[in-house]
Amino acid sequence: MTEVRTVGLLGGGVIGAGWAARLLLNNIDVVVADNAAGTEAAIAEVMDNARRAYRNLTLCPPGAEGSLTIVQSVEAAAEAADFVQENLPEDQALKTALLGRASRAARPDVVIASSTSGLRPTALQADIAKPGRFVVGHPFNPVYLMPLVEICGGAGTSPDVPGRAADFYRSIGLHPLMLKTEIDGFIADRLMEALWREALHLINDDVATAAEIDDAIRFGPGLRWAFMGTFLTYRLAGGAAGMRHFLAQFGPALKLPWSKLEAPELTDDLIERLAGQSDDQAGGQSIRSLERLRDDCLVAVMQGLKRHDFGAGRALKQYEEILYERAHQTVMVQGDRIDAPLVLHQSRVAAEWVDYNGHMTESRYLQVFGDGTDALLRFVGIDSAYHAAGGSYYTVETHIMNLAEVSAGAPIEVRSQVLGVDDKRLHVLHALHHGNEGTQLATAEQMLVHVDTALGRAAPAELEVRDRLVAIAEAHSVLDIPDSVGRRITMPSAPKARP
Amino acid sequence: MTEVRTVGLLGGGVIGAGWAARLLLNNIDVVVADNAAGTEAAIAEVMDNARRAYRNLTLCPPGAEGSLTIVQSVEAAAEAADFVQENLPEDQALKTALLGRASRAARPDVVIASSTSGLRPTALQADIAKPGRFVVGHPFNPVYLMPLVEICGGAGTSPDVPGRAADFYRSIGLHPLMLKTEIDGFIADRLMEALWREALHLINDDVATAAEIDDAIRFGPGLRWAFMGTFLTYRLAGGAAGMRHFLAQFGPALKLPWSKLEAPELTDDLIERLAGQSDDQAGGQSIRSLERLRDDCLVAVMQGLKRHDFGAGRALKQYEEILYERAHQTVMVQGDRIDAPLVLHQSRVAAEWVDYNGHMTESRYLQVFGDGTDALLRFVGIDSAYHAAGGSYYTVETHIMNLAEVSAGAPIEVRSQVLGVDDKRLHVLHALHHGNEGTQLATAEQMLVHVDTALGRAAPAELEVRDRLVAIAEAHSVLDIPDSVGRRITMPSAPKARP
Repeated sequence: MTEVRTVGLLGGGVIGAGWAARLLLNNIDVVVADNAAGTEAAIAEVMDNARRAYRNLTLCPPGAEGSLTIVQSVEAAAEAADFVQENLPEDQALKTALLGRASRAARPDVVIASSTSGLRPTALQADIAKPGRFVVGHPFNPVYLMPLVEICGGAGTSPDVPGRAADFYRSIGLHPLMLKTEIDGFIADRLMEALWREALHLINDDVATAAEIDDAIRFGPGLRWAFMGTFLTYRLAGGAAGMRHFLAQFGPALKLPWSKLEAPELTDDLIERLAGQSDDQAGGQSIRSLERLRDDCLVAVMQGLKRHDFGAGRALKQYEEILYERAHQTVMVQGDRIDAPLVLHQSRVAAEWVDYNGHMTESRYLQVFGDGTDALLRFVGIDSAYHAAGGSYYTVETHIMNLAEVSAGAPIEVRSQVLGVDDKRLHVLHALHHGNEGTQLATAEQMLVHVDTALGRAAPAELEVRDRLVAIAEAHSVLDIPDSVGRRITMPSAPKARP
Repeated sequence: MTEVRTVGLLGGGVIGAGWAARLLLNNIDVVVADNAAGTEAAIAEVMDNARRAYRNLTLCPPGAEGSLTIVQSVEAAAEAADFVQENLPEDQALKTALLGRASRAARPDVVIASSTSGLRPTALQADIAKPGRFVVGHPFNPVYLMPLVEICGGAGTSPDVPGRAADFYRSIGLHPLMLKTEIDGFIADRLMEALWREALHLINDDVATAAEIDDAIRFGPGLRWAFMGTFLTYRLAGGAAGMRHFLAQFGPALKLPWSKLEAPELTDDLIERLAGQSDDQAGGQSIRSLERLRDDCLVAVMQGLKRHDFGAGRALKQYEEILYERAHQTVMVQGDRIDAPLVLHQSRVAAEWVDYNGHMTESRYLQVFGDGTDALLRFVGIDSAYHAAGGSYYTVETHIMNLAEVSAGAPIEVRSQVLGVDDKRLHVLHALHHGNEGTQLATAEQMLVHVDTALGRAAPAELEVRDRLVAIAEAHSVLDIPDSVGRRITMPSAPKARP
């Protein structure tokens, strides 16, 4: 597929605007066909949310953004595009007609995708010129954050097209799920509809309110669904005996009346009741405020899962690799210049690192400084082979100055200055900075001693390592020595002298 | 309700063992009735997982644990108990009979709760002596981490009993959801069953595999369900126009075949297919390894949500307040002798604190010293009320000497010597010792400054706190000042002088 530089979006509602935000943040130009008044302003608001979310989603510095154009016809959006994504209301006749029109304006090699939540691609491709290039690419709200996109071809879809679409989606941070069978509602919406229909029954029967039903999910099974889905969760609920045991134990419950079926009629009464309960639940918060809360929580969940390289956390990790690759930001590129403090470790304050005041707890400062030391040692050639051969630096003394507080999620970086080196010792000052604001948060002066781990005693470092460290120390010898170096702790009123 | 010091558990399978772990970690004694061989070993394994999870779940130092007793009859478990929790297989006749037997052995004021996933309390309480005290308290797996517990009384349940059960559950970190209507499957399991039955259809129809279905959840709607449930999520999907707009847009989809109904028959073929797919999905990982991954992810999700004080994150925050209050009370009970270094924090080196050499990693030393500081501050009267009123000590400077290594599992204790106090400052030396051998492992000299957290600047500590600290400092003034106090870091060959 030719590189996608411009995407034509058919429809700029909630889903269309979400696509626009994800694409623009990935430096792709977007042409949106929507003649509703206020489309541009609505997309601008979604972009504000998306930019804000991305600042927390990844440490990778934001790159250039694509340009946004609003046009009045699907033809105008399609003819400019390297990829077309349709996001119109779930009305089969409307979608089919406008997809047909767009297809006749688009270049013949351009993939045309639909965001439909559940209409069948075979039906939607009925009127498309060159229908082999049509595929469903079903995203989830908010499109700029949610990784899932379900890919489903119709009877007339060319075999290579789902894969071409998946490659493109992957390049903008999505996790494609390839459907092998075309069914109404695909996979995710069938599951969501089943749960949603059951929940509507509970409201309709006055068993529980919208807020209570949401609580039953988010304090319970929803927490597990965020990373394991339903089958792996149940496998674990079966204990060591696994899925067969779970089925033996809970299979009989399938016969119990634990779920209603069919959806209830959306009567005026049910609509009013549900809308009222939804208003109560929102508690007067604006949709934008709720959206930001949702985005914050999504980012927190995905970042938390990233630490364990699992589920959506793994998808985020892979996306970050793409982003970093794109930004050409590797440690070694920065680190080739050694005439300034080295920035070899960048991170972010993890949620579980903060105390009851919401600030990073003191031991995590030392953890981050330790990560800085590790990065410095790797930089001078100490790797797992070096450790395996029995050489290692141990910290013997540390002096920390805590200068400012930092909250969960903040980007942080360690700047490392080598103060002195001999055959066994390494004297270093790390300064921890807030990555965006530059504020100095803390310093750690450390003395490390090189040890022979087999003998358990001090021993000279290998020559290559020492040479590299000495070169850095010499380059750093022209730098100012900060006041935090060489301090002793005293009560100001009663200075303590030591021999 | 009398304070719950002992809980009788009927059944020690996956759910019973999960209850045991949560209760033991909350310093409640547990008597489990289960005559299956290996119950004790199985609970011990679950406890290992639970201890590990709690060390990441909260920074609050772990307190004392309750004691575990295994007995062979439900009567023996019930007669010892201040609260009874039944966790037997989902077999109404079995549960009813054993609940009846247990109720005749229990004290008449003891609440009897059932962990049933969906059987009706009115049926389960049929044979209970004093049936008014019976209530369903339905937890979720793993019980030691998942916050939700659904509370549902039967026709014969006394009006105060659901509230009494809720108070107890809240004290051990759960989030009670009170059902106002008794229905089969309560709320959460109805929703889970609806989704699960739909998912079984997808397997049965060979539309997707277990792994694909789980991916459709965890890369998509599951991420949102972790904190917003279904109704609030859909409200946001409706955009600024909210729930009415969402219903107008997606209500018609309720008529589309986007969900199947009734559960498919659990044929041998379906069971084999699903069990095989589940094995594929697990990829050869042991159940314990998968459980730890699940726990890590749950902790990460809840910690992430805690940052935003939302959903299960808010529940965790409230639980931590309970834990800190309990830790405070424990410290206050300890010795009133202040004429020697104070031993206010004792712990054990956790398995995940050790580096590739098997030694405690450097940041964990500072964590243990921080726990020592917290214990000292609680000892002199700084509790959550003091923090809430805006007073707190912040560490501004720390000097650590690493003297000896320590391995996983070793008992450790912090001995704290107060070196100086003024109205705002606190100068302290902590020494970390191997609890059995007495070896000094490290020291940390620290300067803390009392702050007004609202103003964000130094401010005098409250007089009662200062008086207590001054009394300790005076008592400690006769002690030797160790060599590690007042040190500066220098390279021995080239001492660095500072003005």
